[in-house]
Amino acid sequence: MNVAFTSDNIAGASDSVLAAIVKAAQGNAMPYGNDEGTVQVTNMLADLFECEVDVFLVSTGTAANVLSLSAMTPQWGNVFCHQESHLLNDESSAPEFFTGGARLVGLGGANAKIDPLQLRKAATQKIGDVHTCQPGALSLSQVTEVGSVYSLEEIKALTDIAKEVGIATHMDGARFANALVALKCSPAEMTWKAGIDIVSFGATKNGVMAAEAIVVFNRELVKNLDVLRKRGGHLHSKMRLLSSQMAAYLTDELWLKNAMHANEMMALMQDGLCGIPEIKINTPAQANMLFCTLPDGMEDYLKSKGFAFYGGRWESGVVRLVTSFRTLKEDVEAFVESARRFNTLAAKQSRI
Amino acid sequence: MNVAFTSDNIAGASDSVLAAIVKAAQGNAMPYGNDEGTVQVTNMLADLFECEVDVFLVSTGTAANVLSLSAMTPQWGNVFCHQESHLLNDESSAPEFFTGGARLVGLGGANAKIDPLQLRKAATQKIGDVHTCQPGALSLSQVTEVGSVYSLEEIKALTDIAKEVGIATHMDGARFANALVALKCSPAEMTWKAGIDIVSFGATKNGVMAAEAIVVFNRELVKNLDVLRKRGGHLHSKMRLLSSQMAAYLTDELWLKNAMHANEMMALMQDGLCGIPEIKINTPAQANMLFCTLPDGMEDYLKSKGFAFYGGRWESGVVRLVTSFRTLKEDVEAFVESARRFNTLAAKQSRI
Amino acid sequence: MNVAFTSDNIAGASDSVLAAIVKAAQGNAMPYGNDEGTVQVTNMLADLFECEVDVFLVSTGTAANVLSLSAMTPQWGNVFCHQESHLLNDESSAPEFFTGGARLVGLGGANAKIDPLQLRKAATQKIGDVHTCQPGALSLSQVTEVGSVYSLEEIKALTDIAKEVGIATHMDGARFANALVALKCSPAEMTWKAGIDIVSFGATKNGVMAAEAIVVFNRELVKNLDVLRKRGGHLHSKMRLLSSQMAAYLTDELWLKNAMHANEMMALMQDGLCGIPEIKINTPAQANMLFCTLPDGMEDYLKSKGFAFYGGRWESGVVRLVTSFRTLKEDVEAFVESARRFNTLAAKQSRI
Amino acid sequence: MNVAFTSDNIAGASDSVLAAIVKAAQGNAMPYGNDEGTVQVTNMLADLFECEVDVFLVSTGTAANVLSLSAMTPQWGNVFCHQESHLLNDESSAPEFFTGGARLVGLGGANAKIDPLQLRKAATQKIGDVHTCQPGALSLSQVTEVGSVYSLEEIKALTDIAKEVGIATHMDGARFANALVALKCSPAEMTWKAGIDIVSFGATKNGVMAAEAIVVFNRELVKNLDVLRKRGGHLHSKMRLLSSQMAAYLTDELWLKNAMHANEMMALMQDGLCGIPEIKINTPAQANMLFCTLPDGMEDYLKSKGFAFYGGRWESGVVRLVTSFRTLKEDVEAFVESARRFNTLAAKQSRI
Repeated sequence: MNVAFTSDNIAGASDSVLAAIVKAAQGNAMPYGNDEGTVQVTNMLADLFECEVDVFLVSTGTAANVLSLSAMTPQWGNVFCHQESHLLNDESSAPEFFTGGARLVGLGGANAKIDPLQLRKAATQKIGDVHTCQPGALSLSQVTEVGSVYSLEEIKALTDIAKEVGIATHMDGARFANALVALKCSPAEMTWKAGIDIVSFGATKNGVMAAEAIVVFNRELVKNLDVLRKRGGHLHSKMRLLSSQMAAYLTDELWLKNAMHANEMMALMQDGLCGIPEIKINTPAQANMLFCTLPDGMEDYLKSKGFAFYGGRWESGVVRLVTSFRTLKEDVEAFVESARRFNTLAAKQSRI
Repeated sequence: MNVAFTSDNIAGASDSVLAAIVKAAQGNAMPYGNDEGTVQVTNMLADLFECEVDVFLVSTGTAANVLSLSAMTPQWGNVFCHQESHLLNDESSAPEFFTGGARLVGLGGANAKIDPLQLRKAATQKIGDVHTCQPGALSLSQVTEVGSVYSLEEIKALTDIAKEVGIATHMDGARFANALVALKCSPAEMTWKAGIDIVSFGATKNGVMAAEAIVVFNRELVKNLDVLRKRGGHLHSKMRLLSSQMAAYLTDELWLKNAMHANEMMALMQDGLCGIPEIKINTPAQANMLFCTLPDGMEDYLKSKGFAFYGGRWESGVVRLVTSFRTLKEDVEAFVESARRFNTLAAKQSRI
Repeated sequence: MNVAFTSDNIAGASDSVLAAIVKAAQGNAMPYGNDEGTVQVTNMLADLFECEVDVFLVSTGTAANVLSLSAMTPQWGNVFCHQESHLLNDESSAPEFFTGGARLVGLGGANAKIDPLQLRKAATQKIGDVHTCQPGALSLSQVTEVGSVYSLEEIKALTDIAKEVGIATHMDGARFANALVALKCSPAEMTWKAGIDIVSFGATKNGVMAAEAIVVFNRELVKNLDVLRKRGGHLHSKMRLLSSQMAAYLTDELWLKNAMHANEMMALMQDGLCGIPEIKINTPAQANMLFCTLPDGMEDYLKSKGFAFYGGRWESGVVRLVTSFRTLKEDVEAFVESARRFNTLAAKQSRI
Repeated sequence: MNVAFTSDNIAGASDSVLAAIVKAAQGNAMPYGNDEGTVQVTNMLADLFECEVDVFLVSTGTAANVLSLSAMTPQWGNVFCHQESHLLNDESSAPEFFTGGARLVGLGGANAKIDPLQLRKAATQKIGDVHTCQPGALSLSQVTEVGSVYSLEEIKALTDIAKEVGIATHMDGARFANALVALKCSPAEMTWKAGIDIVSFGATKNGVMAAEAIVVFNRELVKNLDVLRKRGGHLHSKMRLLSSQMAAYLTDELWLKNAMHANEMMALMQDGLCGIPEIKINTPAQANMLFCTLPDGMEDYLKSKGFAFYGGRWESGVVRLVTSFRTLKEDVEAFVESARRFNTLAAKQSRI
């Protein structure tokens, strides 16, 4: 594979995570989460979030998101999310399937962050009308789908509305660590202290092979996840595969270190690209993802030089760049250098 | 943990499987099954089954089973299975959930094998009656839930009826390898040559941490599994976690060797227990699982000696014993020896 | 059509019911149950049942049953019913569809009445086991599918078990009036005083064209039926079509008079058939339905004489006879007379 | 009730329809649509549409719409409709429930008609992408939710796109007759000749109490409606209640006469209101519904004069007026006169 900035899901796993899998696989262990490792992970996450939590480990981000929603919303509920969210655009009809038919309502808002005014309007109309889907849940993505990060105040503004209308709040934290590093706050501050009832605490994109923790803060609102997970076929018999990854991920701040590296690589890339006037930064990257618009020909040029990334899915010229815990500094520098060179070449050509 | 014969899901994984995970986790790879490893596994399974196949890797046996069924049966279909099957008793309402409401019809039959007469009767009544659930699919378990193994003729007898009534056939092969070793036949003979349209090819219980392959033989009857898997949240982004395990499992006949060992350990145990007249063998073990009835007090005695196994769930005195690829010969011998000693003690006591 | 004892759903409607429809159709009325007629029906049913009730009118018995269940059971719940019940055998997969995948557990018991011992066993095993469908609801049919009627004590014995395990109780009262007349008790005694939480109060089979009332006694256990009805497409805009029928049905004891007539006609028929030694009464008719076994040739003979009824669906020779509010005394007498004559002829023939 | 222009669902039924119900209720008839009346209705609709059709009678418009969709779209399908459509806004989550989780995609377009450009864009992106809901069905409303009517060319433009992408097309014809009268075309021209595969042929709003016909033109694309109807609890046992209404509705062009009257009443109202400069017609009424914006105070004034209609649900001042087959000319004239008088009064007041 080329030097790739396509996604953070193309990287493998950190060494300590792999070592943990190998170690956990020795000997016998009770199945279905009745092993010591799973208890340990729950305790680690309780410490991390500074509160009592229920934890449900699953192996995909889609499972974490849709199981969370299925525990929160009635079957005739509206799930308010951003119209550009992963939930709405990249998880097939899994949300409808798991919730038994709840409806995703895609709201607008700059930088893929939900506009509170739109949320309030959508969540307060036709209340109690049997003909209309009723408010069911709020789901926001932190990091958002375009690489921006909600501030704590922005999260609070949305969850406040949710509390007013009496619906539960979910955070899709597929890139939780990257957001946390960007905000320099505590996990508690970014979640339950800001009004979040349940989080999909993602690890797969940031150093493990497959492990996501559904972390429940509000046990009143979010129920039956043990059965819902089993019913969804997401209860692993050898749970230690998941718990060992998650434990290693949380040990010695690996999760923060990995995210810090990914974010730093993106900052380096953004700095470099900012210096090229022909490139337009669409949304300033706060974490490890950047959307920018390249001048004509640059995308093809960069790809011809061996760089892989996504383009052609959005407006003309728009590309997405993602760094990971494994991204090499020299690869970022080489990418920026190539972009710069294309511009110089283009400038020369246009002068001719 | 004690010396445990509770289940084959308590063992970890074979060394080569773990090594394969670690190796696969290096470097970048395309996500969502677009990696080379996934292609390789498909090819290996095609070779194994001597035919073209579609392969869908998932991480739990329940997912493999219910996704298979969801691709085969209409929402108003009857899924014919044995009344003691795992599908009916141990997968919550996952079958109903994934199929959109199809109904499991639990049929009788000795040794947890479906009685063909009962299948024929159930599958041929009220055909076309809009008030009644219609024949949807046949699902049989190989190894069965009580440790017996269908002969090829027995499988054929059931699938012939399914073909007559026009429904697709699924094999729950959570212990596929153990059955194959018992029958000494080829994978093709035990599946599509015997009329099976799709199999849940299990590996988790026999040497890997979490990997099951849905293998489709009949592409006419079984459709849309790619979408159904995604919709179920079962499409791994880092698919190489699954494909690497499965590839290692299929390499150098690890899967057969592991199953052979488990079966041999069970044969050893059965031989030993047969020699104790007070113990009744309920179903002769053909693979790696045995149900037998212990005399009063023996269960407690054995547990006090440090052996773990399941009892108390069935008729009085009935216990289940399961061996795995990791079961030690000395542990089996010690178990048999303890059972024998209990009997001698009991005999002495009764003589007093 | 011939003289028919096939079902009570082949009769039309009582005159006063039709007159009520015509009257209600005049002028304007608020839609979706916001009309005065619907309020009136709720009040009439509250009076009838001597308690506060919530009432939801729908147009089919299947809708009444499955909407009731959908408001009572979790999606992973077992719905305990009799293995011969209409719910299990004649409503396609509507129960699974509306409940989101709950499972019907068909229990045994003589005369199509649930055996309390079987209920207790099924409802108390594997409680809290995430792998197994959990107790969800109890549904019993009054009149049963074979024409028997639960005594008040028999109902109480079942609902007591349900209360112990904490599940709600539903009565499928498609032939509610026929049962009530048979028991000579009050509607309250046959329902909430006997532990029933919700009833499908049927009218369609007993004098109206299409109207069933879901009557909720226990508002704690049974929720959201207003939304569930709408979501199921069962909220009529011109609700007065349903409310006018139900109001007429409940006026001047039409519902009881109709049922009394149907039951009397069946008693007359049963008396007559009892006098023919070659006919075996399978289940003594307590209401308006009888299962009996005819001697060889009698079924064909009776059909050749212009009588219609169902046979050929059960054991050899078994037929079902149903009377309705419209059944004529002379038709019953003619039927019995024909049966008697067949016997005489047969006796003569055998003597030759 | 006041003089009401709230909806066409507040009117009762035409006399001949009521007479037909009464007549049909006499004597015995086979249940579940096996009566002669149902056959007759199918034949009448085949004649009407000049082609072979399958017909499924149900008692609500929501049932007709969502059953139709459930027969057309995969569970991961997008159902393209207008963002203001009844389907999306007024049928709770019935569409998701019946389709097993398909997603409604609300498209824009003037006058509540789907913009073909938006349809093409939405229906052609990410085809085959397992992460994204795939094109499932097109549903358009004729008359639209704001009272406009698609021309035949406009229908064709949309169905052409649907054919290109291989999805089936549904027409929500809750006000089918009103649209047909407006277009002065044949039923065939407005449906299958314009590319429609299935129609919800509504009668309830236009002269019957409760009867809608799902009429299938394309039997290849639309399947299993018999089972789907039963599974939804929408199969009436005494089907003659529905078939008698529909037969009377189609006899002697009652359906067209009723719609013609309703449309004429609306034309009269629109003409009158157009003459009042302070009133803004939002969408010119082509059938029997009008959205207009009233000046400050007029809505309250008209309501104080005893007129009922909906306001307060849309932009400030916007009201909806609906006429029906029963609307009286003098009521329309009185309404217009009152509106005119308010204006005169207002003008006087402002002069003071």
